[in-house]
Amino acid sequence: MAIVLGPNRYGKAETRVVRVTRAADGTHALTDLNVSVALSGDLTDTHLTGDNAHVLPTDTQKNTVYAFAKQHGIASPEAFGLLLARHFTSSQETITGARVDLEEYPWNRLGPHSFSREGSLVRTASVEVSGSAETVFGGLTGLTLLNSTDSEFAGFIRDDYTTLAETSDRILATAVDARWRFPAVDADFDAVFAAARDALIDAFTGTYSYSLQQTLFAMGKAVLEACPDLSEVRLRLPNKHHFVVDCTPFGLDSAPEVFHADDRPYGLIEGTVVRDD
Amino acid sequence: MAIVLGPNRYGKAETRVVRVTRAADGTHALTDLNVSVALSGDLTDTHLTGDNAHVLPTDTQKNTVYAFAKQHGIASPEAFGLLLARHFTSSQETITGARVDLEEYPWNRLGPHSFSREGSLVRTASVEVSGSAETVFGGLTGLTLLNSTDSEFAGFIRDDYTTLAETSDRILATAVDARWRFPAVDADFDAVFAAARDALIDAFTGTYSYSLQQTLFAMGKAVLEACPDLSEVRLRLPNKHHFVVDCTPFGLDSAPEVFHADDRPYGLIEGTVVRDD
Amino acid sequence: MAIVLGPNRYGKAETRVVRVTRAADGTHALTDLNVSVALSGDLTDTHLTGDNAHVLPTDTQKNTVYAFAKQHGIASPEAFGLLLARHFTSSQETITGARVDLEEYPWNRLGPHSFSREGSLVRTASVEVSGSAETVFGGLTGLTLLNSTDSEFAGFIRDDYTTLAETSDRILATAVDARWRFPAVDADFDAVFAAARDALIDAFTGTYSYSLQQTLFAMGKAVLEACPDLSEVRLRLPNKHHFVVDCTPFGLDSAPEVFHADDRPYGLIEGTVVRDD
Amino acid sequence: MAIVLGPNRYGKAETRVVRVTRAADGTHALTDLNVSVALSGDLTDTHLTGDNAHVLPTDTQKNTVYAFAKQHGIASPEAFGLLLARHFTSSQETITGARVDLEEYPWNRLGPHSFSREGSLVRTASVEVSGSAETVFGGLTGLTLLNSTDSEFAGFIRDDYTTLAETSDRILATAVDARWRFPAVDADFDAVFAAARDALIDAFTGTYSYSLQQTLFAMGKAVLEACPDLSEVRLRLPNKHHFVVDCTPFGLDSAPEVFHADDRPYGLIEGTVVRDD
Repeated sequence: MAIVLGPNRYGKAETRVVRVTRAADGTHALTDLNVSVALSGDLTDTHLTGDNAHVLPTDTQKNTVYAFAKQHGIASPEAFGLLLARHFTSSQETITGARVDLEEYPWNRLGPHSFSREGSLVRTASVEVSGSAETVFGGLTGLTLLNSTDSEFAGFIRDDYTTLAETSDRILATAVDARWRFPAVDADFDAVFAAARDALIDAFTGTYSYSLQQTLFAMGKAVLEACPDLSEVRLRLPNKHHFVVDCTPFGLDSAPEVFHADDRPYGLIEGTVVRDD
Repeated sequence: MAIVLGPNRYGKAETRVVRVTRAADGTHALTDLNVSVALSGDLTDTHLTGDNAHVLPTDTQKNTVYAFAKQHGIASPEAFGLLLARHFTSSQETITGARVDLEEYPWNRLGPHSFSREGSLVRTASVEVSGSAETVFGGLTGLTLLNSTDSEFAGFIRDDYTTLAETSDRILATAVDARWRFPAVDADFDAVFAAARDALIDAFTGTYSYSLQQTLFAMGKAVLEACPDLSEVRLRLPNKHHFVVDCTPFGLDSAPEVFHADDRPYGLIEGTVVRDD
Repeated sequence: MAIVLGPNRYGKAETRVVRVTRAADGTHALTDLNVSVALSGDLTDTHLTGDNAHVLPTDTQKNTVYAFAKQHGIASPEAFGLLLARHFTSSQETITGARVDLEEYPWNRLGPHSFSREGSLVRTASVEVSGSAETVFGGLTGLTLLNSTDSEFAGFIRDDYTTLAETSDRILATAVDARWRFPAVDADFDAVFAAARDALIDAFTGTYSYSLQQTLFAMGKAVLEACPDLSEVRLRLPNKHHFVVDCTPFGLDSAPEVFHADDRPYGLIEGTVVRDD
Repeated sequence: MAIVLGPNRYGKAETRVVRVTRAADGTHALTDLNVSVALSGDLTDTHLTGDNAHVLPTDTQKNTVYAFAKQHGIASPEAFGLLLARHFTSSQETITGARVDLEEYPWNRLGPHSFSREGSLVRTASVEVSGSAETVFGGLTGLTLLNSTDSEFAGFIRDDYTTLAETSDRILATAVDARWRFPAVDADFDAVFAAARDALIDAFTGTYSYSLQQTLFAMGKAVLEACPDLSEVRLRLPNKHHFVVDCTPFGLDSAPEVFHADDRPYGLIEGTVVRDD
């Protein structure tokens, strides 16, 4: 019974590239990416014998990220990922698959060539090219939102291990991790990002919540309604617990005004919302 | 065209449970886990209307982790995960699937009831129960290994973006992330862990390496050879680059003795090694 | 020659308290703090014999943080720190000194009771009370700023270990860590914070820089000019290096448009700017 | 009333240098350091006008770290820090003070040129040279220790905010941060490190504890007794709380066997133990 190589891939992870574009009037634009490349193909030799004739070095992948940023600019994380993935799979006979994961760190303009890092929100993209099949995902992480009321949690199952009290007024807080699939690879990626982000925020803010699951579905639905180009959005919402501190032992009233923001454990609600074609 | 709920799950992530077992002679044993539970089933109502009648609260899941640690002890992360996953899927009609991910932080014994945290190595397990199907993975992360020689990298593809020089003597360093699948759920999980860990270390140390891919395959093969119970091991090996610092501008010789340990980017080599049944 | 106890203190670190204030019209306000308390005093017994009769438990300190947030609200981190420090030193005979360090995480209003976490900027305060002496510091960390031009670095010392080329056009990026001392403890802490933060941003943005030291002094000076109440500001500015990637090996021009954002090492410039009374 | 420059310093932080020494028989030795340099001196010009004629670039400081590692090897973090600090202050007229902070990451030998990263313990050193005054500190961080019994906490102050129950059996866990001052700069740094580390572990393990303060003093005393060369040790001990989970609501007994390992808040006990000359 032989021992053999199964699925495999390799690449350069977390190349941190910053692209500055200088307009004629002295105004600069800035794009700040973290790019991870993973390639697959005919790579048995390097695994079995260490013969690297089919291996495009990860150092070359890094150089390509820089060179493409220079030559082509960065139109959007999705478009830049597509450029790279198509290049790797089309230029090397031995490389038949490429996945490129990208994070974009947004900067806020302060002046013609001055910027500040905005928030904890990170825009994400993921591109896969395998032969003629091309898949593009957009998304975001780190969008931290909180409603200080209009959130209940009640009517749930009670078993032998349940001690949780029902509540009709709690803080609901999360850090949104969203990922949407583009049915077509020529979408207006930036417009979709802006519309999806706004829809997520508005739906979180505007939903009177009976469970984080309900809020999740409302957020996913809002994204699909705002973005007719999208057919699917996946959400991953940690329930960042804020526990009411009982101050009655200290002679104070019981109105829920002081909360302990806990680190761990946390709830984690994951769900996909899809257009039913 | 309707917007509908797709795949979804929810649970309590990162419950940090420490179980102490006190022997009659005053010797204590300690198990230190981080447990994440994700449940799935008939959960449409909570998403669409906020009706939580089918929802076992994540708080209850946390309580169950603690109660089971108390009542049953923690034989191994794999066995504890199985206990929990079987409980959630068998005790609630609305819950049909459970995934439990576990991290175990090893402690080194210093005395009858004294311990120190050992290294950065974390033992991992992942259990999925869905109806009668049960899947168990074991593994580890954070096993940081380094060979200061016996590593080459040459003979690779050169394209327009390649500037890397070939090398016949480099540092090879990684932090092993390994995950093995148990064909049977009644394996001796602890024995497999110990044998697999040792096999990984020995294979990394003992392989004269022409590529990290070659080392990866050697490590996976060693695990399968040492553990006849296993049919598959997946490895994820960052290439933690150590670049030779050129000290010749300072009037010093060029022997590769001083290295810059870089953070990012890093190579990332992923592969599965399987028994060919 | 005896072995004796020297300076010591103890307390509860990182109490994460969120205070919600509900206005009659349904509008909520939110204050999100991380509070660390350290007490000192007549504490020799607990160190030498384990007699805790002089020890106010750290758990009680945590409770006090919550109770005071409930009872008094949180006017500002500085004011809340003063309240706490005065309480600990005045209410316990054995506690003669208190230091309270506070971080405030700013939230952006999205609706009457909806908020998003703003940026990476954290407002800081540090209060020390020892007998009748009271010292208050305000400050901020995590204010990440970048100029993509108008920064030079040249004319520096060259010794046997210098390889750095002079540059007349580089990216200058930092994450500001600032701390200002209030000569009086009844200052308008919020107004000073807002004015100091704006002065830091404007001075960074508006300074044509020949060294990060020069920018540091300009920033400190701007704070003192904007805040006549302050007599001293201390700045700690990492130089977050962005290295131009040389794309000429790839047949591309040498205009500095693509940069590698490096993690480590980084420059670190620290300095105090003072009003010369 | 003028605004002027106060105390200031600058340098290169976190240079990650790995030094390999190759013995004639093929055995390698490995030293892995993180080095941060901060220089001070006659630096007013660069702050006020951007004239850098007195500035030794931080890039040169980094090169010097690498070059000295190559030329002199790394006898110990303390000795290497002294070499660097003396060099910077003696070779440049404008630089009169140097502080070098070092972290050493220990590696465990697996073979003649194979190593694994040991634990979370980091050896630390801090060297300051100012004119003819030389100060050297050794130390460690990240030594994580736990006693699962032989720890009580009772007899403490109770005030209006105290809810903590007394306990005669708790888990005591900490991550030791220790720093010792060498009265003479020609000490046997490695021998002191080994003896101090062992004394810290033995004293923590061997002390029946009535408070973490008492354990702290016992640990400091043990270091000074084991290391006659030292006159002072400063300890910083987080109290990493492990709370007993009450499993009686689940029909289980109340023996303290299951604990929740909490992240925040945590106690923080700091104290100095000195030889009374």
